[in-house]
Amino acid sequence: MGKVYLVGAGPGAPDLITLRAARLIEAADIVFHDALVHPDTVALAAKAVKVAVGKRAGQVSTDQRFINRQLVEAARHHAIVVRLKGGDPMIFGRAQEEIESLAAAGIEFEVVPGITAALAASAQLGRSLTRRGLARTVSFVTPRVMANEGPNETESDWLDAAVAADTTVLYMAAGQAPDIARRLIASGKAADTPVAIVENATLDSEQRILTTLAALTASRFQFTGPAVLCVGQVFAATQAEQVHSSRMRELHATRCRLA
Amino acid sequence: MGKVYLVGAGPGAPDLITLRAARLIEAADIVFHDALVHPDTVALAAKAVKVAVGKRAGQVSTDQRFINRQLVEAARHHAIVVRLKGGDPMIFGRAQEEIESLAAAGIEFEVVPGITAALAASAQLGRSLTRRGLARTVSFVTPRVMANEGPNETESDWLDAAVAADTTVLYMAAGQAPDIARRLIASGKAADTPVAIVENATLDSEQRILTTLAALTASRFQFTGPAVLCVGQVFAATQAEQVHSSRMRELHATRCRLA
Repeated sequence: MGKVYLVGAGPGAPDLITLRAARLIEAADIVFHDALVHPDTVALAAKAVKVAVGKRAGQVSTDQRFINRQLVEAARHHAIVVRLKGGDPMIFGRAQEEIESLAAAGIEFEVVPGITAALAASAQLGRSLTRRGLARTVSFVTPRVMANEGPNETESDWLDAAVAADTTVLYMAAGQAPDIARRLIASGKAADTPVAIVENATLDSEQRILTTLAALTASRFQFTGPAVLCVGQVFAATQAEQVHSSRMRELHATRCRLA
Repeated sequence: MGKVYLVGAGPGAPDLITLRAARLIEAADIVFHDALVHPDTVALAAKAVKVAVGKRAGQVSTDQRFINRQLVEAARHHAIVVRLKGGDPMIFGRAQEEIESLAAAGIEFEVVPGITAALAASAQLGRSLTRRGLARTVSFVTPRVMANEGPNETESDWLDAAVAADTTVLYMAAGQAPDIARRLIASGKAADTPVAIVENATLDSEQRILTTLAALTASRFQFTGPAVLCVGQVFAATQAEQVHSSRMRELHATRCRLA
C-alpha cells in the first residue's frame, strides 16, 4: 500500500512551493493536480503519471467523490501518490473529504502545507494583514451571496466573521464583488474601508487594484484568473499606489467594454 | 544600494520554506534572523554574515527600531539583504514597521511569503480549517487578555472576531489558555467547542493536545515552545485521537508537577 501526500502548490509562481513539496513531486509515482497548479510545478514530476482532475470552485460533488476514489485506487498501485492542490490544501481546498476517504480505506496520508492566496496577496501588496495598531485579527472567508438583497440569517455565517475582523480576505468572491461590498456595508463595515483586489497573485499576469467598499459597489471589474478581495484599514493606498491603481482600473474598464 | 528581502522561514521544519526563500538565503550577503528560525535554515546562508536579532513576543519597541535601522544600514553595504522571520512575515510579524523604514530610506524591498503556524497546525492535525459544511470562515487572532475578568470593550477587538468565525486560531495565546477559554465562553462560544493545541508544529518536539474550551479553563498546560490554540468544530477528536491526547495531557501534567 502506498502513501498519499496532499500537497499545497502555493499561490501561482512555481518557486513558491516548499522544499518538501518539490521533493515529493519529484519522487512521485503518480500526481493528481488541479487546474490552477502551474505547469512548471506539475513538470517537476519527471517520472510520474500525471492526472489532471481540474476543477474550479462551484462544480458538483460527484467530481469530488470521483477524485476520492481515484486517490484510494492509486495508493493500491503506487508507493508515492501526490495530490497537488492550489494554495494550501486546508484552506477552502476540500481536503477533508479526501482525507476521510483515505482514512476509511486504511491508507496512510500526510498533508504538506502551501502558501495560501491571502498570504501571497499580502506579500505582493507589501501590506501586513496584522499591522500593529491597526489589525489584531484577520479572517479568511468564502462568501455565499444569496439572491435577495441585504443580509439575512443564512448569510450571517460568513458576514459576521467578515465584519468582525480588522482585516478580511475573501476567497472565490471577485465575481460577486459589488454584491459583497453592499452586504459588508449593510452589515456595519464603513463604506470608506479600503479594498485591495489581487488577481493572479505572484504570476506575471498579476493585477492589483486599490479601491474602497463604496466604490466597489458600483464597479464592473471582470476577472479571468483567481482573485482575492482584501478588505481593511491596512490596505489604505499611498499616493503612488493610487496612481498605479487608477491605471489598472482604466485597463479593466477597457477590457469590460470590449467583453 | 542593495535590496532587502523579508522572507518567511515557515513554521519550524527546515524543508517547509519555499524554493524562493531557500535560493535567496543561499545568495544572501547578510541575514538577520529571529530566535525561532531553525538553525538548518540559517545555515543555508553559506556565504552570509549572520545576525541574530532574536526577539520573542512582548519585547519593547526599541528593539524593533534597532532592527529597522540595521536593515537600512545593511542595504547600503550589501547587494542581497535577507530578513528571516518565523512563519509568514505578514502575519503577526511586525513586517510593516520594517517595510516603512526601508521605504522611507528609498531602499527596494520584496516580501517572500512563508507557511504560517495555523496552516502548519492544520496540516499536522489533518484537519481542514474550512471543512465544507462546518466552516466557511477562519480567523487568526492574537489576543490581549486584560487583568480583570470577563469581556469588556478593550477586549472586543479580538474577542468579536474570535467568536464570530467558525474556526479560530489564536497565536501567542497558549500561555494564557485558561483565561482565553473563559473569555471565549463568556462571549458566546459553546463550552464544548473542540480545541486543538499544537506546540512546536512540524518539529520533532511537536506536541498535540485535543480538548474543549470548558476543559481548558481548568487546565495547567505549560509550553516551552511556540504554540497555537485552534478552536472550532473542525477539531472534534476521533476516538484514536482522544487516546493519544489523554497520554499527552498526562505527560504535560507530569511536566507541570516537576516544574
